[in-house]
Amino acid sequence: MADRFDPPQVLDRLAAELLVVRCSGHLADPQRRYPRWELDNAALQRLLQRGVGGVILLGGCAAELRQRTRQLEAWAGAPLLLCADVEEGVGQRFEGASWLVPPLALARIHAEDPALAIDLARRYGACTGREARQLGLNWVLAPVCDVNNNPANPVINVRAWGEDPATAGALAAAFCRGVQAEGVLACAKHFPGHGDTASDSHLELPLIPHGRERLEAVELPPFREAIATGVAAVMTAHLLLPAIDADHPATLSRAVLTGLLRQQLGFEGLIVTDALVMEAIAGRYGPSEAAVLALEAGADLVLMPEDADGAIEAIVAAVASGRLSLEQLRASQQRRRRALERCSADGGDSAPAPLGALSNGPAPPDQALALELVRRSLVSRGRGPVPGGPGVNLIRLDNSLACPFLPAGAPALALPAAAGWRTCLIDGQGPSPWSGDGEAPLVLERLGDGPVLLQLFVRGNPFRGRADGADPWPAVIRQLQAAGRLAGLAVYGSPYAWETLAALLDPRVPAAWSPGQMALAQGELLGRLGFGPQGGATPDDDAPRAALAVDFTD
Amino acid sequence: MADRFDPPQVLDRLAAELLVVRCSGHLADPQRRYPRWELDNAALQRLLQRGVGGVILLGGCAAELRQRTRQLEAWAGAPLLLCADVEEGVGQRFEGASWLVPPLALARIHAEDPALAIDLARRYGACTGREARQLGLNWVLAPVCDVNNNPANPVINVRAWGEDPATAGALAAAFCRGVQAEGVLACAKHFPGHGDTASDSHLELPLIPHGRERLEAVELPPFREAIATGVAAVMTAHLLLPAIDADHPATLSRAVLTGLLRQQLGFEGLIVTDALVMEAIAGRYGPSEAAVLALEAGADLVLMPEDADGAIEAIVAAVASGRLSLEQLRASQQRRRRALERCSADGGDSAPAPLGALSNGPAPPDQALALELVRRSLVSRGRGPVPGGPGVNLIRLDNSLACPFLPAGAPALALPAAAGWRTCLIDGQGPSPWSGDGEAPLVLERLGDGPVLLQLFVRGNPFRGRADGADPWPAVIRQLQAAGRLAGLAVYGSPYAWETLAALLDPRVPAAWSPGQMALAQGELLGRLGFGPQGGATPDDDAPRAALAVDFTD
Repeated sequence: MADRFDPPQVLDRLAAELLVVRCSGHLADPQRRYPRWELDNAALQRLLQRGVGGVILLGGCAAELRQRTRQLEAWAGAPLLLCADVEEGVGQRFEGASWLVPPLALARIHAEDPALAIDLARRYGACTGREARQLGLNWVLAPVCDVNNNPANPVINVRAWGEDPATAGALAAAFCRGVQAEGVLACAKHFPGHGDTASDSHLELPLIPHGRERLEAVELPPFREAIATGVAAVMTAHLLLPAIDADHPATLSRAVLTGLLRQQLGFEGLIVTDALVMEAIAGRYGPSEAAVLALEAGADLVLMPEDADGAIEAIVAAVASGRLSLEQLRASQQRRRRALERCSADGGDSAPAPLGALSNGPAPPDQALALELVRRSLVSRGRGPVPGGPGVNLIRLDNSLACPFLPAGAPALALPAAAGWRTCLIDGQGPSPWSGDGEAPLVLERLGDGPVLLQLFVRGNPFRGRADGADPWPAVIRQLQAAGRLAGLAVYGSPYAWETLAALLDPRVPAAWSPGQMALAQGELLGRLGFGPQGGATPDDDAPRAALAVDFTD
Repeated sequence: MADRFDPPQVLDRLAAELLVVRCSGHLADPQRRYPRWELDNAALQRLLQRGVGGVILLGGCAAELRQRTRQLEAWAGAPLLLCADVEEGVGQRFEGASWLVPPLALARIHAEDPALAIDLARRYGACTGREARQLGLNWVLAPVCDVNNNPANPVINVRAWGEDPATAGALAAAFCRGVQAEGVLACAKHFPGHGDTASDSHLELPLIPHGRERLEAVELPPFREAIATGVAAVMTAHLLLPAIDADHPATLSRAVLTGLLRQQLGFEGLIVTDALVMEAIAGRYGPSEAAVLALEAGADLVLMPEDADGAIEAIVAAVASGRLSLEQLRASQQRRRRALERCSADGGDSAPAPLGALSNGPAPPDQALALELVRRSLVSRGRGPVPGGPGVNLIRLDNSLACPFLPAGAPALALPAAAGWRTCLIDGQGPSPWSGDGEAPLVLERLGDGPVLLQLFVRGNPFRGRADGADPWPAVIRQLQAAGRLAGLAVYGSPYAWETLAALLDPRVPAAWSPGQMALAQGELLGRLGFGPQGGATPDDDAPRAALAVDFTD
């Protein structure tokens, strides 16, 4: 039953308060990269005035984000949950802040020195929480609590804090403490555990065949640890777990959210869905029905409903028809408001940051942390510097047009260029380099002459050549070695790719791996392979002139 | 002679005031794209405190630039000249502001309707001046007054306001009036005229063989018009004009700067050099000597000296040795100060803009101007929509890693993708698509099957295939037509490229040209070729899913 006074508007606002909509971190509409998913400013302003209670932001630099969060608060006129997927430091998503190595790097450190890794994870969280707050965010959608026990996992992989439950739990909990000590909320995800899937819930609904016993042994412990340490929120997974609920994915399952998470694990904080627009949900349920089902199942907040207005109306109708109780929605509202109060009550400097926050980049201790993490997680092998050269700097990446780690001047480009190496990018969007021959997949004459420095930016499951769909890189390593042309190997990202490829290397080939892909990791890694620091170019090299010509057209 | 009181410091500050140094528009040091050319914040702050009087900025978005200019003013503690190469709207360099079609587009309009073109040029200037001021800039390094009478010019080309002196002069002067009515300084460049060169002064020193009579007929009129309309500054060219000065390039020539510009053309405003780091100067003179030579020749301000401290010291020493007179430096100082006063005295709203300027992008009239310019300058031919398909969306661009006009979701990518076309990028940094056969330059099987939509982003003189150095695109057009695979042609940028290629087309092939390369131009042009508006993707296409996967990794 609705309130006695003005019930339609009150209920409408209550429903709206439980939604988290998405917008770009860029200020202006034309700057949006994904207008299909990112509300325009008119719609955003209208929804915030309708009472929508949270916004997830993506895109833009730190300075822009700081203005953006202030703008959103002004439009809402009430405290908002402002969140972002900043799992690897705020700089992962917003240029100008700290970009840290992915969490799995710390799991590797944990194997050697658990106390050090736990302290690093806490500092990692503190850095992320502090910078988030400085830019106006109050909710970090991390840590990933999934145990990455399946190296083929296309969507979790290096985002996890461990490959075993104890490591993942200890580090994720330390990260939570770091974030929340800064007065920012953390979010353990993706409940009840997304680590053991080989399919991608962005595209389809993965199935987890495990029973309760196995969940208790592997998937649940990190969530238990995060909850024990006081994590403010838990995000649900778009997974089917037939042993618990044969009919509904976890996000929409009362057995999972209310039964398992709320009652059995005793979690009293905010339960938020993963993005409802994702194909595993959006493809199966109506855009508004999914929001109602999630709340029915026990979620407090609905992330990225496909149609926010439709979701509000469906929730209102579900209350009217008795599918949802007003008491339940009010309880969710109370959890949301308690979480917001916690942001200002918890430690840290709770005063709003000035617009000039981070205006000279990360603070020195955070810069030091970023460098320490890169150095401690870097692995190299082989003897001395890359021999021969100049030759071909062959770089594999996902998409050269949207590649935040390879701006002009990035070390992976600039250091080899300064030594005379020619860049050749392979990203599946250029002319094919593939022969169709699985044993000699590259057509070498399409790349140019000379030794090859192979730099692979790989995370998740990107091990597919365009020609045949199979992983071409082990064969490429063998092919280049057989031709006497492999001068060096750099792998940025996946430890599994590194381990597979390093095992194939001639021991004389210098090679290194960094879990990080950002400029800092590139510079450190290439330093190990004998490429000088930036600026060490010889006076007659072409690279700076080319940069100047691109850059300075007057 | 120096002052009686504390002469060394006074002279040091006077010398410093005449320099314009370069920094990134990004706030934080690690965000710099060209650290070799862009001062770090510590050096910048120190130089501003030493008295450096101007800064040229490049890079960063509008929101970041607004903070950056405020930061620089705070460091300097005195009024600064803050400038940028925003020749084609502030959005050309700083995302979030207006990005307009290049000036040569208006020259084409001028041929049909001079009054309309002149009014558009004035509005173009007003838009640029207003947005510059809103972001804290007070000096627009435009208009280009060079007459682009040489289609092979690699460096001016579409940046010019005309291919004949009358058009260039009328439009450049109208642009100046628009900029300066907003309380922002304009800058006519590159004196005495850079239009008739086929070499690039970024790389070498071009030679202009013309005598005075020809200069009066072609090169000088646009500068005379800009001066007559009150342009605040003139920038020098790095060109050798043996008929005037056989020994020194214009930038360092007393005959050109003092004789021709100051005395004969009667220009009383600021004379600023082009960037002294450019190879035509940097490669020939010592880094500090060039600054002294420029001032000796009659320049008031020195742009981007290779070593600002060295330049200050060299200027101080030149005064001590009598090479430079203190009176001359003081006259330059006065011109600089008068220009700064003019910024606040001239029309427009002279109050400093708030940090949230442009926070919802360009104002509606400026958006309308940008669209009007795109529509009026768009040329299309052939019949109806692109037939066949889906096939290969073959895109030629300079550098996929630094391509501001092709972010994720750019129409040139998204519209064909939504209709099922596969993107294939050719930028000289991927595996070679070239056969080495001049008559059939592309190896078609490296691109994939089906009809080809050819989209060329070309400006200046980029008509070089990697394989042979000759212009491959006319042969590519013939090759694709012979194979029955040319479905459509889009040219963004150079009218010369368009005219050359359009002449080769089968009249049935739909084709279009826009002088602009930005998203707005892409959408309008592809609309003419039958590709629907963004968001018109069929529900089962792959593009939005792929975008989601890239974008939304949780």
